[in-house]
Amino acid sequence: MKVLVIGANGQIGKHLVKLIQDNDKLEAKAMIRKEEQADFFKDLGADVAVVNLEGEIDDIAKAADDVDAIVFTAGSGPNTGKDKTIMVDLDGAVKTIEAAKHANVKRYVMISSYDTTREAIQESPESFAPYVVAKHYADEWLRAADLDYTIIHPGMLTNDTGKNQVELAEKVERGEVPREDIAQVILESLLNDSTIKKEFQVVSGNSTIEDAIKSL
Amino acid sequence: MKVLVIGANGQIGKHLVKLIQDNDKLEAKAMIRKEEQADFFKDLGADVAVVNLEGEIDDIAKAADDVDAIVFTAGSGPNTGKDKTIMVDLDGAVKTIEAAKHANVKRYVMISSYDTTREAIQESPESFAPYVVAKHYADEWLRAADLDYTIIHPGMLTNDTGKNQVELAEKVERGEVPREDIAQVILESLLNDSTIKKEFQVVSGNSTIEDAIKSL
Repeated sequence: MKVLVIGANGQIGKHLVKLIQDNDKLEAKAMIRKEEQADFFKDLGADVAVVNLEGEIDDIAKAADDVDAIVFTAGSGPNTGKDKTIMVDLDGAVKTIEAAKHANVKRYVMISSYDTTREAIQESPESFAPYVVAKHYADEWLRAADLDYTIIHPGMLTNDTGKNQVELAEKVERGEVPREDIAQVILESLLNDSTIKKEFQVVSGNSTIEDAIKSL
Repeated sequence: MKVLVIGANGQIGKHLVKLIQDNDKLEAKAMIRKEEQADFFKDLGADVAVVNLEGEIDDIAKAADDVDAIVFTAGSGPNTGKDKTIMVDLDGAVKTIEAAKHANVKRYVMISSYDTTREAIQESPESFAPYVVAKHYADEWLRAADLDYTIIHPGMLTNDTGKNQVELAEKVERGEVPREDIAQVILESLLNDSTIKKEFQVVSGNSTIEDAIKSL
């Protein structure tokens, strides 16, 4: 199965491309914004597509035309303005969902935020709420799309080394989780069709990721 | 017919409440953000509800519980940050659509932007695109809602006195149009059920607003 990783140059994305390249059943195509980001992925033996998420749906669809699954793990990041929140986290995400349809790629894994419900929007601090709104509508768009989606809602992301110990369910208590573990959760989701049309929160816990995904 | 005007304190909103109060068939309920904005509307004999669009859907639904139609003409304005574009122009609008459903108000008139299509997003200058994105998703949400909607896409708004001379169709050439004329277009839309489930662009032209709406 060939997987287009959108946001491959992000921290989760880099872990994920490595994990995919190490797995016999999977191969990665890294979607990145700038040509100069390509070497890291080429060195891993991954395919590369240079596409800007603020560009046309057709360009994203072209990058997806030879893959079997799409993972969206792009994010505008904490250091950009709210204009990028709307252009990347919302509209960029929606364009990749539309691109999946155009390219007939049914399998789609979305890395969302811990809680993107209406309640979470209303309770978020003013500075964070626009991000939650953006992720809320992207998730809603995906749920309404006729795709084999999985929506992953990670807890507070850390750069700790992955521990392969998580708690994973529709609702879990708020907590931290290493980005490296989230990459592994994505990998196991791709390998297990039981995650299709499901969404779940993940934090660090007491199950291996393989077991947690299987008992979902 | 009682009409909840959301964004009543805006320039179009003020014209609209006046026009509604002058019409025998209609009465206005002005939804405003601050109590100190109320006198203008009370002096016109209009009802008033003080509700923040960044608040809960239930509060908006409560304001809508005694009305027969909702007009959304709120906007974050050109002087606020892109966070307000997300929170008001997108999420605020969607919350009023949800509030209409909660309050069983079927009739809903949305004041959108001149062009909120995917093509318009891609062609917009970087500083304007986030606004187009916000209006795009608000319009999409309304089209998907089971409401008797009308979506009005005005040209470049001016503060000129209304001329009651417009061109109005699904697609019209880009042009200016006075806010006072848009208020009249909203009024005629409320009075003509032939505008239900329709959307149109409006600029200044050669037909009276009454004729333009009737020949839609």
